[in-house]
Amino acid sequence: MELVIDIERLKQDFFELSEIGKNPEDRGLYRTAFSEADMQGREWLRKKLDACGLEVRTDGAANVFGRLSSSDDSAKTILVGSHLDTVPCAGALDGSLGVLVALECLRSLKEQGQDLRSHHLELVAFSDEEGRFGGMFGSQSVVGAVTPETLEYYSDLEGCTLADAMRRCGMNPLEALDARLDPEDIDSYLELHIEQGPVLDRLRKPVGIVENITGLFKWLIKIRGTANHAGTTPMEMREDAFMGLADFAHEIPRILEENGAESSRATIGRAQILPGAPNTVPGLVELTIDVRDTSKAVLEDLGQAFHRALSAIARRRKLMFDYEIQSEIEPTECHKDIIDALESEAKGLGLDYLKMPSGAAHDAQIMAQLTRMGMIFVPSREGKSHSPAEWTAWSDIEAGANLALRTLSRMAGKTET
Amino acid sequence: MELVIDIERLKQDFFELSEIGKNPEDRGLYRTAFSEADMQGREWLRKKLDACGLEVRTDGAANVFGRLSSSDDSAKTILVGSHLDTVPCAGALDGSLGVLVALECLRSLKEQGQDLRSHHLELVAFSDEEGRFGGMFGSQSVVGAVTPETLEYYSDLEGCTLADAMRRCGMNPLEALDARLDPEDIDSYLELHIEQGPVLDRLRKPVGIVENITGLFKWLIKIRGTANHAGTTPMEMREDAFMGLADFAHEIPRILEENGAESSRATIGRAQILPGAPNTVPGLVELTIDVRDTSKAVLEDLGQAFHRALSAIARRRKLMFDYEIQSEIEPTECHKDIIDALESEAKGLGLDYLKMPSGAAHDAQIMAQLTRMGMIFVPSREGKSHSPAEWTAWSDIEAGANLALRTLSRMAGKTET
Repeated sequence: MELVIDIERLKQDFFELSEIGKNPEDRGLYRTAFSEADMQGREWLRKKLDACGLEVRTDGAANVFGRLSSSDDSAKTILVGSHLDTVPCAGALDGSLGVLVALECLRSLKEQGQDLRSHHLELVAFSDEEGRFGGMFGSQSVVGAVTPETLEYYSDLEGCTLADAMRRCGMNPLEALDARLDPEDIDSYLELHIEQGPVLDRLRKPVGIVENITGLFKWLIKIRGTANHAGTTPMEMREDAFMGLADFAHEIPRILEENGAESSRATIGRAQILPGAPNTVPGLVELTIDVRDTSKAVLEDLGQAFHRALSAIARRRKLMFDYEIQSEIEPTECHKDIIDALESEAKGLGLDYLKMPSGAAHDAQIMAQLTRMGMIFVPSREGKSHSPAEWTAWSDIEAGANLALRTLSRMAGKTET
Repeated sequence: MELVIDIERLKQDFFELSEIGKNPEDRGLYRTAFSEADMQGREWLRKKLDACGLEVRTDGAANVFGRLSSSDDSAKTILVGSHLDTVPCAGALDGSLGVLVALECLRSLKEQGQDLRSHHLELVAFSDEEGRFGGMFGSQSVVGAVTPETLEYYSDLEGCTLADAMRRCGMNPLEALDARLDPEDIDSYLELHIEQGPVLDRLRKPVGIVENITGLFKWLIKIRGTANHAGTTPMEMREDAFMGLADFAHEIPRILEENGAESSRATIGRAQILPGAPNTVPGLVELTIDVRDTSKAVLEDLGQAFHRALSAIARRRKLMFDYEIQSEIEPTECHKDIIDALESEAKGLGLDYLKMPSGAAHDAQIMAQLTRMGMIFVPSREGKSHSPAEWTAWSDIEAGANLALRTLSRMAGKTET
């Protein structure tokens, strides 16, 4: 019998989970981390895992696990999963789909009596990937990156700390420090996720095999000129901070062409113009630039090029500038073994896959600190994400889930050398 | 004896008036229209005018007048003045200097027994030029542009209507409608004002003779794209509203060169980028553009060119745009007779004057609806205005005041043909 998932059962799970935390007015999901709805989602998952006969546990960071053990006690564990928490007013696929596919894969493997000679298989649903409290809390706990300070440092927009939110859920926050897994016990981590971008949808590919997750730097740039009267100040006597920003924005395509790669992105997402009166030449502009690439070297080149552009513009327009680095994340490579396994199984399934970078951050990127990591993407209709408009065709979900199933089976059935 | 103003007396008046409404903390003036300090300023002026033996009256719009009558009752009136109200945290020169120079001119002419054969001379200090309630209220009243609706329509930032503010000062707002002057009675209006721009200061000219006051149009432009994830959306798949704005800003110099004149100005003073998250490609940008020129035809050309640029950018970047006209003011010419008189007297005084446009709006522009109008500018140190840093050298003030004095004397001594 061919090894396949049961798409109807997956749909059923999806429809059930999609009701938990749904706001009937905007049809968006509100399962922010450690909210009541988030806790209900975890409880729903635990019951599902238990009903399938998997060994269920919840660690100190509220990560939920469901284990399909190998006959060999000393075997290593292949983890597969994603997260259940959502942003406010979310779609139903982000994170949840990866957990549901993991559930369906383990259930199918168990039912179809697959031989797990050499590896345990374990579903994981991570906590607070989306960042009510900083983000990636569950995977950070598992790799041992959480400290007692972390628990008190992060707070949500209402000022509630992570530790307090956990206490309100009846948890002891310090137990998150015990969630750390031993790298010796773990073989690998596989995550299926919606792309959250338009590439697969535009190219009409059912699945993507992620090669790497982009790194990024985010700068807060201040450009200072002189505020002046818009009527009385001749054009050539201005020190217009906004025109400095306009020049800088205009350099982005050239800088990406000269110093970037195909995977490079640069975005000015925020800009504040001061004093901000229609009849006043702007004296100060604050902006953010978010620059991403899959190569550390390319990111460094881009950083230097953006710095040079700012210097040249400031000189030319008699402006001053400074910037602070708001965040910096190194690119992460998916493991070659897992990419190869995914590619081989995708070919076996006759899937027209695309090898691609991930432009968004994922738990997988944290898990790479602990173990070999790989990711499968399924298309996001029109690239929509973090919105109730988020959607993926069921045929693509089925393709992605079967690719996960075959790959897990292949990895679990093989002794690592 | 040579006809000159007394600069020491002018300084003394200036120092007295500069204390009224001064905040000791930021050293800025707070004489916003119909505030207690504004009323004190008017009372101070009335006493000064009275002490000089001028005929003092206050009209229904709180405009203060001080008259030096001709021996000929049927003579027309030459008005000279500016405004006493200020923006919040103002400098001491804007408006006040024009009123104080008018006071000093009338005082000097009276003392020096000048023959006023054919014209009455009258100082005027207009109300709310700066716009706590829309602006130019005093001069609008005098030209008959105020209606009962005006009084209830305009309100300050705290929501107090103009009518209520006047009532709180013990005035009957409807009497502002009686402030209208008969054009038949008025010969001309002369105003001295600080330039509020850097041109005279940079060129080291003591005075400017204004040729015209720029007109303007102000548009509120909305550029719509699609908000998307900054990491997952490839550069070529974006509909980035902010990049549309950057392109538009970049076209300004070209459009001014191709379609504008030397006096043309275009300023993007306000821009709001939405949603405004560093990691989100902007989906909507709202901006203002303030475009000024002294020629109506040039303004029309510029409007068409900016419209074409927006259309081309929207097409190229797959964006949508619309705009609403927030204000539109036609350029105003100063009267040739007054320009000629000022020029002739400036030459007589050996002043290195500059004929120039006014980039800012003034009561003079409203007064042009009623009568012949002219303006004298004195330099603003570094172009600073609407700030306690506003300053003009006393030698330039003296030069400007003597130019006003000689010109008034010339105009008053001559029967208009």
